[in-house]
Amino acid sequence: MIPLDPAANPVGLVDLVDLTRALVDTPSESGDEAGLADAVESALRAHPHLGVVRVGNSVVARTDTGRAERVIIAGHLDTVPAAGNLPSRLDGERLYGLGACDMKGGVAVALRLAAGLAAPVRDVTYVFYECEEVAGDRNGLKRIAADRPDLLEADLAILMEPSDAGVEAGCQGVLNADITVRGERAHTARSWMGVNAAHRAAAALRRLDDHSAERIVIDGLEYREGLNAVAVRAGIADNVVPDTCVISVNLRFAPSRSPEQAEAYLRALFPEYEVEVTEVVPGALPGLGQGPVASLVEALGAVPRPKLGWTDVARFTALGTPALNYGPGDPTLAHTAGEYVPIGQLRECERRLAAWLGG
Amino acid sequence: MIPLDPAANPVGLVDLVDLTRALVDTPSESGDEAGLADAVESALRAHPHLGVVRVGNSVVARTDTGRAERVIIAGHLDTVPAAGNLPSRLDGERLYGLGACDMKGGVAVALRLAAGLAAPVRDVTYVFYECEEVAGDRNGLKRIAADRPDLLEADLAILMEPSDAGVEAGCQGVLNADITVRGERAHTARSWMGVNAAHRAAAALRRLDDHSAERIVIDGLEYREGLNAVAVRAGIADNVVPDTCVISVNLRFAPSRSPEQAEAYLRALFPEYEVEVTEVVPGALPGLGQGPVASLVEALGAVPRPKLGWTDVARFTALGTPALNYGPGDPTLAHTAGEYVPIGQLRECERRLAAWLGG
Repeated sequence: MIPLDPAANPVGLVDLVDLTRALVDTPSESGDEAGLADAVESALRAHPHLGVVRVGNSVVARTDTGRAERVIIAGHLDTVPAAGNLPSRLDGERLYGLGACDMKGGVAVALRLAAGLAAPVRDVTYVFYECEEVAGDRNGLKRIAADRPDLLEADLAILMEPSDAGVEAGCQGVLNADITVRGERAHTARSWMGVNAAHRAAAALRRLDDHSAERIVIDGLEYREGLNAVAVRAGIADNVVPDTCVISVNLRFAPSRSPEQAEAYLRALFPEYEVEVTEVVPGALPGLGQGPVASLVEALGAVPRPKLGWTDVARFTALGTPALNYGPGDPTLAHTAGEYVPIGQLRECERRLAAWLGG
Repeated sequence: MIPLDPAANPVGLVDLVDLTRALVDTPSESGDEAGLADAVESALRAHPHLGVVRVGNSVVARTDTGRAERVIIAGHLDTVPAAGNLPSRLDGERLYGLGACDMKGGVAVALRLAAGLAAPVRDVTYVFYECEEVAGDRNGLKRIAADRPDLLEADLAILMEPSDAGVEAGCQGVLNADITVRGERAHTARSWMGVNAAHRAAAALRRLDDHSAERIVIDGLEYREGLNAVAVRAGIADNVVPDTCVISVNLRFAPSRSPEQAEAYLRALFPEYEVEVTEVVPGALPGLGQGPVASLVEALGAVPRPKLGWTDVARFTALGTPALNYGPGDPTLAHTAGEYVPIGQLRECERRLAAWLGG
C-alpha cells in the first residue's frame, strides 16, 4: 500500500508525488489510523538501517549511527474527516485531497528521507503519530512522551506541519475560558422583575471589542496575540428573561507568557466577572539560538516567521527540545475541503532536508 | 374516573376539591390528553341538558335553552410535564400537584358548573381543550375554530386561566424575532483578519439594555410592554472568530398595537441589523365596555387588571368575542414544581360564576 518496499523497488524509493497520493488515498481519520500505521511500519521495517518501534498507532523509526547530534522529524498520520475530497487529484502543480496539505505531504517527505538516508550526518528519529487533530489527551506524541520518553530525546525537532515550506518558529499558547454574566430570571411578560444577563453581557463584549491585543517580539519575531469571544450562549425559552450569559473566550498568548501569567492577564481584564479557565496550553519559544537550529535555518534558506497557531512544537519545547515547524503546504488551507499541496514545495522540502541531513 | 356521573351521585355533583384532585391525578401532559378527554366526555354525556361534541381531544358541551346571551367558559385539559409533583397533596387550604394551578382547578369549576346548571339564565358553551401548553398550531381552540367555528359563537368568553380569582382583561401581544449581527470568520490565531460578530453584538445588546419599554393605558388598564433578548447564539469552534451572532428578542406589546405596528416598532429600533420576525401573535383589547362584560365584572366583584402575558383570550378576540381571564390560582405559580390552588379561590370562583349564570 505504501510503495516504499526496497524489494519491490531496487532503490527503495518511489516518486514523491506518487507516495503522497498513496498516503492521501489511505484514509486515516483521527482514531482510525491503524491501517496507515500498519503500512508505514511495514514499509519502514523493510529498511535495515532503521530501528522501528510501534506505540499504539504511532510509529517511530531511528537511525543509530553514533552521530554527535540527533534530530527528530515528526508528522501526524491522522486527518480531519473527509469533506468530499477523496480520492486525491493532481491538477498541474497541485495535489488535491484530504490531508494533502495537513499533513500527508510532510509525512511523504519524512518517509522518503527515512527510507533513503541510510547514513545521515545527523542521526534522525522519525516520528509518525496518531490523533493530532483531536483532543490533546489522545495525542500520539503525548503517549510516546509518557510511555517511551527516551524516543523523544534529541537536539532539535522538526515538525512537518504545513508552513509554506518556510520556517515557523515556536508557537503561541492558548487559553480558553468561560466568562459568566449573571442576571435574574423572570417571565418576559413581567421582565422588569428580573435582570437580563444577555443585556448585561453588552459591557463584557464591548470590552473585548475595545481590547488591543499585544505584539510581543522574541528573537526578532513578532508574536501578535489575540483575545476573542468564540461563543456566546444565553437563553432558556422565548418567554424567559435569561439569568446567565456565558461568553467563551479564546486567548492566543505569546510564548514568553506562562499559562499562569496568561490566566492572570485575562482575569485582570474582567475583574468583576466569574472567569473559569477551561483549557490552557503553553506556547513554545522560538529558540532560534538553541542547539543546531541556526544551522538548520540557514540550510532551509528561509527567514523564520513566528508561528501564531498552536502546534505540537510546544510538546517538544516542554520536553526541553527546541522545535520548529517546517513543511509543504499553505497552513490556511488546512482543514478545508479544497486543501492541496504544491508539488514544488514538496520537492523543495525534501531536497533541503536531505541536504542538511545527508551532510 | 371523573366523579361526575349523576347515576353514581344523585345530585350529579361531587365535592369540588375531590374533583380537582381527581383531575390532577389523571395525567394529561400536552399530546397525551386522550384519557382525560374520554373521562370528561363521558361524564358530560351523562347529563341530558348538555349537547356534547368531541373535536380531537377537546370536548365541547352546550346548554341550549334559547337564552338571549351565550357565554363560553373555557379551560385547557393539558399540563406541562410533571416535575415530581404527582400525585396531588392537600395541605390545609392549598391543593398541590401538577396542573392544580394551571389549570385543573379552573377546569374543575367549569365541570361542576356544566353538570350542575341545567337551566342557566345565560346559555353556556363549556370548552375543555387540548394542547394549550405547546406550539400554537396544535392548540385545541385553534382546531375547533377551524373545524367547528359555530361552536365558538358567543357574546363573551371566560378563560379560566389562573388569575388569583381576579379579572385579568385582554392580553398583550407577542413578537419573537431574530436579530443577526454579521462579522467575518477567521482563525483565532489570526483574528485581526476577521471581524468578530459576537463583539459587534455588544452595541445591539446595549441598545436593548437602554431601551425603556412603554406603558400604554387602555380602558383605564396599564399595559406595560417589554423587550428582551431571550437568547444569544454565536460560536463555531474554540479556534474560530464567529461570523454571526443571533440575538433572539421577545417583544410584549400592548393590545392597541397591531402585529404590523409591533414589527415596525422593533425594526425602527434596529434599523442597521437584519431582523427576521419568527412569530407574532396579536394581543386582545380588554373590551370592558363590550357585551355583557360589565355585568360579569360586577358579579365577580373584582377590579379588572391588565393581563400582561399572552393567553387564548386573544383567539376569542380575533373571532370577535370579548374575552377575559378569570380563574383560581396564582399565575406566577404556573409551570412551577410547587404549583397549588387555594381552596378558597376554587370555591369563590364557582360561587360567583354560578350566581351570575344561574340568575
